[in-house]
Amino acid sequence: MNSFGRIFRISIFGESHGPAVGIIIDGCPAGIPLQEADFLEDIARRKPGAKGTTPRQEADEPVIHSGVFQQHTTGSPICIWFANQNTRSADYEKQRDVPRPGHADFVARVKYGGFEDYRGGGHFSGRLTLPLVAAGVVAKKILQSGETPIQVRARIVEIGGETDIEKGLEKAIAAKDSIGGIVECEAIGLPIGLGEPFFDSIESVLAHAVFSIPAIKGIEFGAGFQAAKMLGSQHNDPLIDLSGRTATNHAGGVVGGLTNGNPLVFRVVVKPTSSTPQTQHTLNLASGEIEPFSVKGRHDLCIALRVPVVLEAVTAIVLADFMLLAQQSHLIWSSKKEASN
Amino acid sequence: MNSFGRIFRISIFGESHGPAVGIIIDGCPAGIPLQEADFLEDIARRKPGAKGTTPRQEADEPVIHSGVFQQHTTGSPICIWFANQNTRSADYEKQRDVPRPGHADFVARVKYGGFEDYRGGGHFSGRLTLPLVAAGVVAKKILQSGETPIQVRARIVEIGGETDIEKGLEKAIAAKDSIGGIVECEAIGLPIGLGEPFFDSIESVLAHAVFSIPAIKGIEFGAGFQAAKMLGSQHNDPLIDLSGRTATNHAGGVVGGLTNGNPLVFRVVVKPTSSTPQTQHTLNLASGEIEPFSVKGRHDLCIALRVPVVLEAVTAIVLADFMLLAQQSHLIWSSKKEASN
Amino acid sequence: MNSFGRIFRISIFGESHGPAVGIIIDGCPAGIPLQEADFLEDIARRKPGAKGTTPRQEADEPVIHSGVFQQHTTGSPICIWFANQNTRSADYEKQRDVPRPGHADFVARVKYGGFEDYRGGGHFSGRLTLPLVAAGVVAKKILQSGETPIQVRARIVEIGGETDIEKGLEKAIAAKDSIGGIVECEAIGLPIGLGEPFFDSIESVLAHAVFSIPAIKGIEFGAGFQAAKMLGSQHNDPLIDLSGRTATNHAGGVVGGLTNGNPLVFRVVVKPTSSTPQTQHTLNLASGEIEPFSVKGRHDLCIALRVPVVLEAVTAIVLADFMLLAQQSHLIWSSKKEASN
Amino acid sequence: MNSFGRIFRISIFGESHGPAVGIIIDGCPAGIPLQEADFLEDIARRKPGAKGTTPRQEADEPVIHSGVFQQHTTGSPICIWFANQNTRSADYEKQRDVPRPGHADFVARVKYGGFEDYRGGGHFSGRLTLPLVAAGVVAKKILQSGETPIQVRARIVEIGGETDIEKGLEKAIAAKDSIGGIVECEAIGLPIGLGEPFFDSIESVLAHAVFSIPAIKGIEFGAGFQAAKMLGSQHNDPLIDLSGRTATNHAGGVVGGLTNGNPLVFRVVVKPTSSTPQTQHTLNLASGEIEPFSVKGRHDLCIALRVPVVLEAVTAIVLADFMLLAQQSHLIWSSKKEASN
Repeated sequence: MNSFGRIFRISIFGESHGPAVGIIIDGCPAGIPLQEADFLEDIARRKPGAKGTTPRQEADEPVIHSGVFQQHTTGSPICIWFANQNTRSADYEKQRDVPRPGHADFVARVKYGGFEDYRGGGHFSGRLTLPLVAAGVVAKKILQSGETPIQVRARIVEIGGETDIEKGLEKAIAAKDSIGGIVECEAIGLPIGLGEPFFDSIESVLAHAVFSIPAIKGIEFGAGFQAAKMLGSQHNDPLIDLSGRTATNHAGGVVGGLTNGNPLVFRVVVKPTSSTPQTQHTLNLASGEIEPFSVKGRHDLCIALRVPVVLEAVTAIVLADFMLLAQQSHLIWSSKKEASN
Repeated sequence: MNSFGRIFRISIFGESHGPAVGIIIDGCPAGIPLQEADFLEDIARRKPGAKGTTPRQEADEPVIHSGVFQQHTTGSPICIWFANQNTRSADYEKQRDVPRPGHADFVARVKYGGFEDYRGGGHFSGRLTLPLVAAGVVAKKILQSGETPIQVRARIVEIGGETDIEKGLEKAIAAKDSIGGIVECEAIGLPIGLGEPFFDSIESVLAHAVFSIPAIKGIEFGAGFQAAKMLGSQHNDPLIDLSGRTATNHAGGVVGGLTNGNPLVFRVVVKPTSSTPQTQHTLNLASGEIEPFSVKGRHDLCIALRVPVVLEAVTAIVLADFMLLAQQSHLIWSSKKEASN
Repeated sequence: MNSFGRIFRISIFGESHGPAVGIIIDGCPAGIPLQEADFLEDIARRKPGAKGTTPRQEADEPVIHSGVFQQHTTGSPICIWFANQNTRSADYEKQRDVPRPGHADFVARVKYGGFEDYRGGGHFSGRLTLPLVAAGVVAKKILQSGETPIQVRARIVEIGGETDIEKGLEKAIAAKDSIGGIVECEAIGLPIGLGEPFFDSIESVLAHAVFSIPAIKGIEFGAGFQAAKMLGSQHNDPLIDLSGRTATNHAGGVVGGLTNGNPLVFRVVVKPTSSTPQTQHTLNLASGEIEPFSVKGRHDLCIALRVPVVLEAVTAIVLADFMLLAQQSHLIWSSKKEASN
Repeated sequence: MNSFGRIFRISIFGESHGPAVGIIIDGCPAGIPLQEADFLEDIARRKPGAKGTTPRQEADEPVIHSGVFQQHTTGSPICIWFANQNTRSADYEKQRDVPRPGHADFVARVKYGGFEDYRGGGHFSGRLTLPLVAAGVVAKKILQSGETPIQVRARIVEIGGETDIEKGLEKAIAAKDSIGGIVECEAIGLPIGLGEPFFDSIESVLAHAVFSIPAIKGIEFGAGFQAAKMLGSQHNDPLIDLSGRTATNHAGGVVGGLTNGNPLVFRVVVKPTSSTPQTQHTLNLASGEIEPFSVKGRHDLCIALRVPVVLEAVTAIVLADFMLLAQQSHLIWSSKKEASN
């Protein structure tokens, strides 16, 4: 449930206001140079501080507890761990009976029978994306270690309906409200044939991982929802050379569930942060009354701003797993040779 | 790779022009009334014959090979099997070196080293959705066997950009081209708390399964991509009673990855059928030349027309699996009682 | 539950007296020459007919339903199927309320609420080892396709406490009773390093698969239970050359859960066939009385005689899976090179 | 690879001389009372100090990093963590090129390309059984929370061929050598029907988990290897009442892969500790010469002495997982009722 992957396999743990959050990476090959400093760049990209992001400041210092020796991966599980320090749990204890609109508060309470850690969203918190980013750093190293390095890059393409991101953000600030956005991710350098028909299609496994990022409510590949309006002769991407290159890329680099050698392109929608500064109404579970509700705690106005590095991370995690799985193709080719003799 | 599910687990096999296609369902509880006739209604809904669908006619007669005894499930794996009869493989053998635009022909050839069964798309064929529909019938029985029956229903909401479906279809017929569409699926009667935070969120697992349906290129839950344009105070669904009902359903029935007791609502985009009647261009792998290409074989003009029953099936499969997993919550409650003493 | 393996993954289905038994093999590389005739040799080794085996004669003709095209594997799931023909179900229907001692009749009835197919042991029947043998044939091909072919061979080493097998068998015939035995399996040619520390040790995964063979009640590697009587200086196998060869092989070719390049050697104990010709006593579930019981149906006197080819099959299945997983080590070495620069 | 279980799922990490060892437990129900003190009793049972055990003394203080709130489990992953303190790594660095006989040193070096953490056995160390014991404590709580509490208890039954354990131990001390033993485990209170035919038989899954304990080289259920010498009429356990009780228990409580309501009984063999005080010979990988070798570091003379609590732990982990899986049977029974109407 809190694990993902087949060869390169991650398991996350922790709560927003507990002692720590962390991740175990199992199945990482031995011999990859790795030290704590390697995580800092991507961690910094996820950090709040910019306009529209939460004022909660955490040190976010990664500590490697296992799986690394003499600054290289050993092939054993890598445990990366982050202490929680800057927590203000009292904010949450007061509102225990007033589930925040748009949050998991109410459903978590029902699912776990009232035993959930409700402080700051507990295990449902976006803080859990921090260890995901750390695992993404390791996955990116695997992707870049092959003969053809694979690059994964995500960026915001729309906020509040505006492609001028600054403008979309100003809209939210003016409205004193949170706001949604769209993030696009691209991976280049992928070989042909990653993925499987049906249940382990590239789209299936990527979507599975991507929807684990809080606030994502949709994903589309290539032309995506625009494809509904297109004719087949428009949407089909004609093959133009033996390397698999196509004249267009409406398929977003995936055909029949497999990578086709063109850039893998997909977009995700990020809903507006549930914790809006606006006064809302919700049910008081103790009184049974609808009552006005104002957000306590410190929150992002536009969580989409912090999604790109997380989206890159889960994409890299998925692709690294597929690349490690694809190593078995060596056998295919030796069999093939035999067959053609 | 060709299996899916944790408790209710399916495995598909077969090729479009091989002897048969089929599915094994493992983990189905014993005692569910089941016989071959039960599959016919949903199979008929998937059948071609209507305007815009392929003229290939198959008997599609389900044969149960195992797991059913005296017209009830036994708790052992259920193998459901369909013979392929109406195949015209010669159509495909001629075009072996001319990969069809938009199809998996080229990538499959690279991935499998030329050993793939290329006739009619082989294992990549939409014909494999037939056993999926059969498994969906069994899953629906599980969903309907509880105290609160769960209903899953999908319908086309848009073809070629038109919500008047007939009009969208005429557009394709007039253009002598294939066309895309949007299908919406709704599940009602779900309890609160199905799903897990992070990797097994309802959205994650549903998206995983849904992208295994050929031609699906995007999925969105609730307000979906519209959420990118919304403010938090608009998107948040206020809780209005202790049953979990909310005033609006922009979340599509899923919060924090868990069902919230409201209808589960999502939409998928179906790309235009790759096999359009239009002349296209593609690469001849033998000559290395770009050449004109006309579709052989018998195909759908608008595959979206046949998607609803398949989408219902994979949705029911996913939800049945979650429901069987959720049985463990009994233990939660007994523990809870103990804790409160 | 009825599936096993990570890359090379099998799923079995069928009942002793149902229409068929069969298996799906997923994850088999493309390009391996395969046709129905390839199964016949191992199927013949499993067949009854020799002294001490059941008189039930089945054609055991394998039919390939998918995953093979032009006599080579395609990389898609391979479904191999065997019709059941020679069934005499009436034998079983009469004794429905009289669970056979040593069989799964009673526990299956409780587990499945009376819906189990009780004829001939249903899904618990030893007949399900037939598709396992078929999958073993495919696995052996994978093992033999590498540069160093891997050979798996099992043989009976003891029957009824006698290493002279004939003598052990005569003992059973004289006693008009069924009898147990010990089967030893050896795999040679394995590379160093297959397996994982802890949960996927070679011993763990092999034992998991081996205990799926009906009637197996114990497994030991190398010196096995004798190790309990040994001193460390006796049991330790001294390394004698850089290829990993050791002077002795008390470890049975596995150290720390990993293959060490020496022959993999293990033994399993096969309990006496539950269906003995002797009159026994059991509980009549309808009357609640203990009553004398005589076996109906046709059975083996010494099922151990038919175990070797089945044991080879599951061993080959496990080792093929480990070999396909080990392909990822290529990446390890390229990383290593980089690290040493 | 370092994870195990389907519902109650554990993932271990850490190395003998790294910063820490630990475990994540996923899938544990919410509401179970749990605090650090609960681990101490079983941890103490695993601790060295008695005659024949290592003088290395570790504090072994468990720290809960996640998944517990207000002294109850929350339903989120539980991370339990132990600092390593009393390490003397210099012992190991000197002997880098002299693989210890009977240890994983050589195979680990080959498998991980020289990047493994070789200090104190690294990730292969018996120290990793400490977090297993911790997970076992949680599993035992689940087993004891039902209406019929399930008890798991293991004990040494033989050391060095002696059932008088003290005598076996004196033998080793006199010989200045390490020595092997046999440990028996029993679980009582199990319901009928846990386990699955074939790949998830109780024996399969238990053996899988048990072989993850270092130094285990064999497992047998009930009569075990003695069954090879028995006749069917001797081995069969006659059913004597409707609760499933049998007159004898040669099956060790498992028939057809399923629990039958009688005590689950199995024995494992523990090989003599590889690190014997005796001088041995091994290969110097640098010089290529065979040379005498004496153990450095601090080690157990009879590791079997510390196995019982570890064996209980993995057994409890496996049984808790089966119990949580079995909750789905509720649905079976409701279907059954419907069917009988």
